[in-house]
Amino acid sequence: MRIAVDAMGGDYAPEAVVAGAIAAARDLGVEILLVGPQARVRDVLARHRGAPPLEVVDAPEVIEMHEPPAMALRRKKRASVVVAIELLRERAVDAVMTAGHTGAAMGAAMLGLGRIPGVDRPALAVVLPTKTERPAILLDVGANVDCKPHHLLQFALMGSVYAGAVQGVASPRVGILNIGVEEGKGSELTLAATDLLRQAALNFVGNVEARDVFNGVADVIVCDGFVGNVAIKFGQGLALAIRDIVKGELAGLRGKLLLFYLTPLAGRVRRMYRRIDYREYGGAPLLGIDGVVVVAHGSSNARAIRNAIRVAAEAASHRLVDQLRSRMPHLGVTAQP
Amino acid sequence: MRIAVDAMGGDYAPEAVVAGAIAAARDLGVEILLVGPQARVRDVLARHRGAPPLEVVDAPEVIEMHEPPAMALRRKKRASVVVAIELLRERAVDAVMTAGHTGAAMGAAMLGLGRIPGVDRPALAVVLPTKTERPAILLDVGANVDCKPHHLLQFALMGSVYAGAVQGVASPRVGILNIGVEEGKGSELTLAATDLLRQAALNFVGNVEARDVFNGVADVIVCDGFVGNVAIKFGQGLALAIRDIVKGELAGLRGKLLLFYLTPLAGRVRRMYRRIDYREYGGAPLLGIDGVVVVAHGSSNARAIRNAIRVAAEAASHRLVDQLRSRMPHLGVTAQP
Repeated sequence: MRIAVDAMGGDYAPEAVVAGAIAAARDLGVEILLVGPQARVRDVLARHRGAPPLEVVDAPEVIEMHEPPAMALRRKKRASVVVAIELLRERAVDAVMTAGHTGAAMGAAMLGLGRIPGVDRPALAVVLPTKTERPAILLDVGANVDCKPHHLLQFALMGSVYAGAVQGVASPRVGILNIGVEEGKGSELTLAATDLLRQAALNFVGNVEARDVFNGVADVIVCDGFVGNVAIKFGQGLALAIRDIVKGELAGLRGKLLLFYLTPLAGRVRRMYRRIDYREYGGAPLLGIDGVVVVAHGSSNARAIRNAIRVAAEAASHRLVDQLRSRMPHLGVTAQP
Repeated sequence: MRIAVDAMGGDYAPEAVVAGAIAAARDLGVEILLVGPQARVRDVLARHRGAPPLEVVDAPEVIEMHEPPAMALRRKKRASVVVAIELLRERAVDAVMTAGHTGAAMGAAMLGLGRIPGVDRPALAVVLPTKTERPAILLDVGANVDCKPHHLLQFALMGSVYAGAVQGVASPRVGILNIGVEEGKGSELTLAATDLLRQAALNFVGNVEARDVFNGVADVIVCDGFVGNVAIKFGQGLALAIRDIVKGELAGLRGKLLLFYLTPLAGRVRRMYRRIDYREYGGAPLLGIDGVVVVAHGSSNARAIRNAIRVAAEAASHRLVDQLRSRMPHLGVTAQP
């Protein structure tokens, strides 16, 4: 298993990326190719004594977070994310992980790898914890704004294949994110998409209210990328606000005495926050791209980078793309403009 | 100040509504008219000894939560919410509070009171806590799916008037909920609405990312009702999931010892949950209706009912509707189909 890692992606690149890549190589037994400006990446690598030897692939250009991705991709042909995708296209690696600009990663992946037949728009999928043992996959969370009904159908099919192939869920329950559980509720988009979902070869369970996502009522939940992105970030903002209140209270003396008792509690709450915070849950696969590309949050630390590499390795080892390639075109979905 | 309360609205009606109304009459010094099946409401009232004498207005019919509102409003002319709205239309009361079906309340209000000139679509507004002293008003959170750009403009104007008139915020900062802060990001709807917002007589501060809502970056944040509803409910679901984890941990013996220490901490966290949970924050005004109508969550307990009556009383005493009537038509907004 060989994974190309965009050494320059993310707010704490290349330091956090290199540290996370070393951890992944050590813990997961995968081979890492660090892609970035050679001298700079080697310099950071050299500071990690006793680290496993990681290969470095030179890519002298960097796409910054504030650059409009389309223009950056045209101008910077040797940007780290572009070179990493190129390695995947040439089958020199099995997957790519980047914590850089999601739009740039999507653009580079579309240009370099293209879509799986039957997929009009690749989607960004996040895996959320629930109160049950089974997580919930929510997609799209930001790759596509202004979706059409058949896009949501394709998200459902891709999410269902992911849940089955990578997470081992038999007959994944697929729902559509909506403002009520009653039939007939929803926007023009969700009502039209529901008609398509009912007719598809899916275990469709109908509307899912946003507050029930965490109750484990469905394994795969589809929505427009605008809605998904807002929901995820609203949840993050709320969770962080609650955490700040708790932290503020613990700062006092009484709080300090508490820390001994609170350790197990804090640990569980922290894990919950981590799983909702996409710095932590391990990266979001770009489903529908003809190759495994995983995007980690821009503010990923070394642990988040390691986890995102794990997600990429799991998707590659479960042959996610082969599964999508063999199943998507046969599920009655034809690409529409 | 006289407020008509829909005694039959909500999951715990009429018991919780009557208890909340008694608390409001006692604490807030407002006069309450309980609207519902007379014998049944009087029966519940009689169980509260020493309660202030509340007037009861007979309304023998009840709209159930599962009924399609349009049909229910046609068939049940003497439903409690309809009769309550009628009292407001006749100026027998200053405001209406209901914890019944939001769609039924909106429908009854539209039929009985109509819209303020310059408003195409009334919106449901929620007041959210932030890390700063100032709350954030988010609208629409569910009254309108499939909004047009000029609807979002009108939501912004109404929210701005509410923040100024009821909350006393000078020159309220108005933002638009979006998937990124950068200019040019967003859906067709948000991009077109942004153009309108820039030109309006508003203190427009641009895009607000969902995770920043709780950071207090804007006083008024507008969005499509589908997006707002999903965001609010996603936040609620997450908050409840975190609370369940905390509760589970506290159930153990070690947890019980902790309770003594945790009281102040738990109190603050509980308040945070309460304010995000719309059973608790006190009801959402239907902005744009030609009369003060406040909707409380269906699962409101007595405290939530009392708080929602408080919100209705505040809006009425600050002459919210007069302010909206005088400002909306002159802000360059013309009703569009």
